Amino acid sequence: MTEAGKLPAVDEATVGEMFRQSMRRLASSVSVVACLADGEWVGMSATSVTSLTMDPPALLVCVNKQASMAAHLTLGMHFSVNLLNREHEGLSAAFGSSKLRAERFKDGGWAAGSSGVPVMGEALAAIECTVDKMVEYGSHVIVIGRVEEVRMGNEAHPLVYFDGKYR
Amino acid sequence: MTEAGKLPAVDEATVGEMFRQSMRRLASSVSVVACLADGEWVGMSATSVTSLTMDPPALLVCVNKQASMAAHLTLGMHFSVNLLNREHEGLSAAFGSSKLRAERFKDGGWAAGSSGVPVMGEALAAIECTVDKMVEYGSHVIVIGRVEEVRMGNEAHPLVYFDGKYR
Repeated sequence: MTEAGKLPAVDEATVGEMFRQSMRRLASSVSVVACLADGEWVGMSATSVTSLTMDPPALLVCVNKQASMAAHLTLGMHFSVNLLNREHEGLSAAFGSSKLRAERFKDGGWAAGSSGVPVMGEALAAIECTVDKMVEYGSHVIVIGRVEEVRMGNEAHPLVYFDGKYR
Repeated sequence: MTEAGKLPAVDEATVGEMFRQSMRRLASSVSVVACLADGEWVGMSATSVTSLTMDPPALLVCVNKQASMAAHLTLGMHFSVNLLNREHEGLSAAFGSSKLRAERFKDGGWAAGSSGVPVMGEALAAIECTVDKMVEYGSHVIVIGRVEEVRMGNEAHPLVYFDGKYR
């Protein structure tokens, strides 16, 4: 304490790196976000899926503008959010690495949903959305999805990412 | 399957309720978002804190427009995000219930941070931000916080909320 009741300040240059470290301490569910790109199934793993509102039912996901997914998720496009369970660690890895692209839709019971996008039959929950709003900020875009359809899978434990590891 | 490779459609009327259920299956860290309101410390527990970008360092939190916190988090205002560990279940409950308002800043080692907002000394990580952008959507507002300062607490297990329970 430098003065009564006030915490000492932190060196500003270290803020970026400390923020990165602090976000490793944020536990989050792992999802696969999937859609169609010229008729092909594409997907990416994401830890930034967040419930936004219940009325209307909507969620958001933060996507790096440099990710190929960012080019596919434009206003009015359909996409699915598929919540992984703890048996889907390999599947998450496949959707997180371009080297494993060929492995992506093999396991998990993928099929076309009502809107045509790939939906994962073995997901804890699979949610079909339409992109309703996009907000750019820095390197990322916040994609707001209006929920069109939800399918619940079997009760199971979620795949959680924390401190650089799956839990 | 109604036709080859296509999942059957779900009744539209049930989408809202199914979305609510599906979001119970999204595991998330519990944080306390805190700020100053006319010089008083105020806070609320939140499960919607999400890392947005590293450059600039920024995070987002979704706040119900009816929550009193929404009135305090205006452009340029400071706030803190304090990641709870698994010993902070009672503290999360206090920040989630107006009946327990008097208990809120008792435990956790709260002190004023550099920007003057309450910062929790015992948090897994405590992040001071300035509101840089706000995006309204339905009943909620997405508050984007530009990170100004980060303090890391001791290594510990996060408090995680899943399926209506703390984990």
